[in-house]
Amino acid sequence: MSDINQFNITQKVKDSFETEPDSRFEKILHSVIDHLHDCTRELNVTHDEWMGVLNFLYDCGQISTPERHEFILLSDVLGFSALVDMINTRGGATEGSNLGPFYLDDAPEKKLGANLADDREGVTVLVHGTVTDILHKPLPGAIIDTWQADATGTYPIQEQEQGQDKMDLRGKFTCDEQGRYYYTTVLPKPYTVPYDGPVGKLLRAGNRHAWRAAHLHYIVRAQGMHDITTEVFFENTEYIDNDAVFGVRKSLIAKLEPAKKIDELGFETEKKPDAMFKFDFVLAPESKKR
Amino acid sequence: MSDINQFNITQKVKDSFETEPDSRFEKILHSVIDHLHDCTRELNVTHDEWMGVLNFLYDCGQISTPERHEFILLSDVLGFSALVDMINTRGGATEGSNLGPFYLDDAPEKKLGANLADDREGVTVLVHGTVTDILHKPLPGAIIDTWQADATGTYPIQEQEQGQDKMDLRGKFTCDEQGRYYYTTVLPKPYTVPYDGPVGKLLRAGNRHAWRAAHLHYIVRAQGMHDITTEVFFENTEYIDNDAVFGVRKSLIAKLEPAKKIDELGFETEKKPDAMFKFDFVLAPESKKR
Repeated sequence: MSDINQFNITQKVKDSFETEPDSRFEKILHSVIDHLHDCTRELNVTHDEWMGVLNFLYDCGQISTPERHEFILLSDVLGFSALVDMINTRGGATEGSNLGPFYLDDAPEKKLGANLADDREGVTVLVHGTVTDILHKPLPGAIIDTWQADATGTYPIQEQEQGQDKMDLRGKFTCDEQGRYYYTTVLPKPYTVPYDGPVGKLLRAGNRHAWRAAHLHYIVRAQGMHDITTEVFFENTEYIDNDAVFGVRKSLIAKLEPAKKIDELGFETEKKPDAMFKFDFVLAPESKKR
Repeated sequence: MSDINQFNITQKVKDSFETEPDSRFEKILHSVIDHLHDCTRELNVTHDEWMGVLNFLYDCGQISTPERHEFILLSDVLGFSALVDMINTRGGATEGSNLGPFYLDDAPEKKLGANLADDREGVTVLVHGTVTDILHKPLPGAIIDTWQADATGTYPIQEQEQGQDKMDLRGKFTCDEQGRYYYTTVLPKPYTVPYDGPVGKLLRAGNRHAWRAAHLHYIVRAQGMHDITTEVFFENTEYIDNDAVFGVRKSLIAKLEPAKKIDELGFETEKKPDAMFKFDFVLAPESKKR
């Protein structure tokens, strides 16, 4: 038996796993072990510090429920979710951004021009644009799946106990023959990520706020194309430069315009909007999974 | 606002924390973010893989209770606990090894020569040695705090419901004027770490076993000296080359000897042993905490 020490232990741990050579599982396992062992050595971690980290993870686990995934939140505030979104953005396609915790896959289908907000308070905005491929060819029949907070920064699903319908402020639209979509809704407001748990404690320890810039969520799908999950933000709104989960990209910021331009577009809408903005989605072709 | 991308996001995440410059908190936070962002980029992590990791952590959290800390177990099987033990071993002192989950700080005080095992089945062994400083000066009054599994690989604390006393097979001994300690107990057997949870799933996915080499646990303390937490193993026993938590070091392996040599030592023991081994502990002076 060769002796084990703080330098060769990393290789020994990797060797202890009998993984298929060059498999994805092996690559992930080895990379995580390499990086975290390096980190531990570099910092000369003490026993107290190491237990602090393990207890932080324990606390994240204890506050988690099927409705609250504190590890996703941790990933969000440390920029990992954004980084994974960036890594997986296809060249030429719309940049990806956070899925967030409030997506429901069975949102109701709506007709183009419908109003998602009923008679909710807030600024009614016309949202419109096109879905095209990376060569700007329209994609008729593309599906725009959207969900959002209201003008108080709340998702109806968070207020089900107060009588709200979780399907409110959600909808799936099918693009017309020119690849266009359009609907009205209320402008959402900023809100905070949950900060009453261990992740909130971490934010406070680093003097960070928990606010997200106001945004609309989208998943856009079309036959033969790679889905995109993203968010659309608004120019010159609060937290646009310091979103708590690093979701904002320049290319995802829309510019609000006055309603007077709406007539030129010729859209029939259920409700008369106060303002409007345009956002075009670009999808890349599906690639074979590795 | 400068745009964010997969290369500058790491600095932006670090900058989002207003930590005291060069504080330990800042160093740890920055190093963890740097290494894990690098790891994520290097692997080109997909959304499914990232959710797989987050759900693995979620599952570890869900199975954890005040009696079961799955994150410590994860740290153990990935060699982090051993690495932290190695990093924190003082030059010249006995090497550290796993504390494990069964330590109780209020073990009963026992007299030198006592038998820890009552009339339990198994091989009764005389355990003896000295506690000295790194210049070999004996440390009279040093405290040997020990706990162990029995000859079936079970800690009495695990069988409290079957009527076992959790304080069995534990004891604190005070070294005599020559810094010597001696007592008898049964030889422990190997046992498995818990493998019915997410960490067990990881071990199985990597074709790894969950067995620990048989060992005795020790915390050794003396006035003005740095405590050591360690384990003592036995030459040529099962799993000595592939302990599931990387706890074995060459310097921590004791050699069992026949009982006939015991008379030469002149120790008075409560029970007549079948075998014996010697293990000397060496403590380094306390250093100021950073």
